[in-house]
Amino acid sequence: MANSGATDQDPVVIIGAGFAGLAAARVLGAAGVATVVIDRQNHHLFQPLLYQVATAGLSAADIAAPIRAILRQWPSVSVLMDTVVGIDRAARQLQLASGGSLRFGALIIASGARHAYFRNPEWAAHAPGIKTIDDAIRVRRDLLLALERAETMRAEQRETRAEHLTFVVVGGGPTGVELAGAIAELARHAAERDFPHITRNCVRVVLVDSGDRLLKALPPSLSAAAAQALAGLGVEVRLNSRVTALEPGRIMLGDDSLPACVTLWAAGVAASPAASWLGAAADGSGRVIVGSDLALPDDPAIFVVGDTAAATSRDGQPVPGVATAAKQMGAHAARAILARRAGQAVPAFRYRHPGSMATIGRSHAVADLGWLKLAGAPAWLLWCTVHLWFLAGFRNRLVVGANWLWRYLTFESSARLITQQESDMR
Amino acid sequence: MANSGATDQDPVVIIGAGFAGLAAARVLGAAGVATVVIDRQNHHLFQPLLYQVATAGLSAADIAAPIRAILRQWPSVSVLMDTVVGIDRAARQLQLASGGSLRFGALIIASGARHAYFRNPEWAAHAPGIKTIDDAIRVRRDLLLALERAETMRAEQRETRAEHLTFVVVGGGPTGVELAGAIAELARHAAERDFPHITRNCVRVVLVDSGDRLLKALPPSLSAAAAQALAGLGVEVRLNSRVTALEPGRIMLGDDSLPACVTLWAAGVAASPAASWLGAAADGSGRVIVGSDLALPDDPAIFVVGDTAAATSRDGQPVPGVATAAKQMGAHAARAILARRAGQAVPAFRYRHPGSMATIGRSHAVADLGWLKLAGAPAWLLWCTVHLWFLAGFRNRLVVGANWLWRYLTFESSARLITQQESDMR
Repeated sequence: MANSGATDQDPVVIIGAGFAGLAAARVLGAAGVATVVIDRQNHHLFQPLLYQVATAGLSAADIAAPIRAILRQWPSVSVLMDTVVGIDRAARQLQLASGGSLRFGALIIASGARHAYFRNPEWAAHAPGIKTIDDAIRVRRDLLLALERAETMRAEQRETRAEHLTFVVVGGGPTGVELAGAIAELARHAAERDFPHITRNCVRVVLVDSGDRLLKALPPSLSAAAAQALAGLGVEVRLNSRVTALEPGRIMLGDDSLPACVTLWAAGVAASPAASWLGAAADGSGRVIVGSDLALPDDPAIFVVGDTAAATSRDGQPVPGVATAAKQMGAHAARAILARRAGQAVPAFRYRHPGSMATIGRSHAVADLGWLKLAGAPAWLLWCTVHLWFLAGFRNRLVVGANWLWRYLTFESSARLITQQESDMR
Repeated sequence: MANSGATDQDPVVIIGAGFAGLAAARVLGAAGVATVVIDRQNHHLFQPLLYQVATAGLSAADIAAPIRAILRQWPSVSVLMDTVVGIDRAARQLQLASGGSLRFGALIIASGARHAYFRNPEWAAHAPGIKTIDDAIRVRRDLLLALERAETMRAEQRETRAEHLTFVVVGGGPTGVELAGAIAELARHAAERDFPHITRNCVRVVLVDSGDRLLKALPPSLSAAAAQALAGLGVEVRLNSRVTALEPGRIMLGDDSLPACVTLWAAGVAASPAASWLGAAADGSGRVIVGSDLALPDDPAIFVVGDTAAATSRDGQPVPGVATAAKQMGAHAARAILARRAGQAVPAFRYRHPGSMATIGRSHAVADLGWLKLAGAPAWLLWCTVHLWFLAGFRNRLVVGANWLWRYLTFESSARLITQQESDMR
């Protein structure tokens, strides 16, 4: 067997068990094709609800499930917890952090994205993004510690308490909007009930976006509805604002300096290093530019999908970096591999857009399904239903649904725990 | 006001919001006495179920609740998240890690215990105990990573796989017994279902105790029943064995050397540094020796309770270091403060022992209620009922109960997540 030829004997390897990777694994597993799924984590994470872990509403285990358990039903699919450090295209081999290597017949790269800080990587330390469970737990700790610290300030410090309770979220997309709303609710309800020295008015939540409206993927009427709902929760929305500097406790927006006890980053993502692994062409965000079949233009056996890819739909539109697109791309790549093995032609990828939505606080959302635009409580019910529906695993659905009902009835955040303290204080 | 006199104007201060501290706060709160509860954490932890967090059965938030939420109903009780670093007895003042200080009228020290490694403090790094949520999450990570690593071993390493799946638990009390049983179940069920390269027989769980039987607090017949149940789960029980050396991957028991991918410590506790704060007499485990009213013999305004105290019950028996004793001691100290303020005599503390129990795996337990000794499924049902009953908070009871039912029916561990990886592998 020549080293350089992709063969059907070598397994299909999928890098990443996010939405795209799992969708691909399911198609290949159902077809009985030998497949290896590699991920750095042992769990798949339902990222759209991760902001609720960061704001103490859900536990990590409620929105994550072991990859092995999810893929257990397909005996031809095996799971490897390891980190890819390089790809040898000529030898059709992956290099792994554990020191091993892995041959592939075909490859689907679905390794996702991290937050991008444009030309300021040093900001990452002061304004974390939320991509993993550990990120979310650290943010939860920072939010709750800010409240504890403000509560225990001595009388002479109390004038500066408002500074110590200013939370800034950068980025007005769905994640930023949902995060800002959830922080406002957490801080204000907790302040009212459990922190006698903190009043509602001490808490300040600022949502910053460089554009002229929030939720640019939605129609302007829904952006306005979202802005109004956020204002109702006390969130200050600052549009047309750019971050010019960031340091601990302070953020500069243009020439305006704001105190900020916690700053969170929900603006812009950068793809994983797949392009450099492959030596392939990438766009400005580091996403690998793929052909209409989602494979590399010069290598039909290597597919790049999800947030790692810069793809164009059959209708000429760029494919957005959202969960539904990732799932569709993953399934398409897997079907393309099956078609090619069966000697059939591979159709061009076409993204079907089911709609966009974002939730704001405990009973408000905006949703755009194309034929239907909703705001307020009906959109919120739709949002809850859709997210529960897509949450992997019957048990998780039950737990999250029960948690939401409980929270709705009691206003109580169920996971208000400070853990992973930097300096172990004991 | 003289600096040295305890006055009723200064609040009662409680250090620690474990079982003892919360019991004291409830009594004082119900009486409307100004009280401050200080804890390093923002949450109370139901420690008897912490081993289930470490073995992926429960989420941390299922067995923990914010101290502020628990004590919210008593307006005279306030909560302070801070760490005590010293006590100035003359000035009736606590020094806090935040730099502040706090005057007290009366003091209840309920700061608990950490694991004791006898004369080998360096063992702590290789054989962690499980006292906090962070401890439990780290142990969960180590257990699950051991399985992932064994699964991905290459063919030539497979002979040593058994070494990489040997889990050792030191200490045959209830915690050690419950931990060993839960690890055996987790590893063997996960191995059977999700790790095709690991067979049941690769997994080895060893429970070590220096005495001649497990569960010394229970009658010998129940110790034997527990040993038999553990054997049924495949746990190797080594009695009359002492740890003589510990290094990463290896443990010495007398002259016998055992491989050990994970070693956990459930043997012996050392009290918090209260004795040195107070300059008071302590026993060999660092516990402060208190009088029959649980106050310091030379200072009736300073009480020491729970695992921090070496107390003797009115019947002459030493008070054991268990949750029920901690609760009774905390409530007694609070009632003693109320009695003294009302000019009444303080009775000597009397420990009422409700019984002892330990669970082994998914349907077995042993229980000794004095008038009733149970083993097997009936004891297990009793164990479940009692633990759900005492779990703080109605919601937690529901979540844990539902989780147990789910796990019982499906054999599925709901929180099988690897987080807090030491080296972020991304």
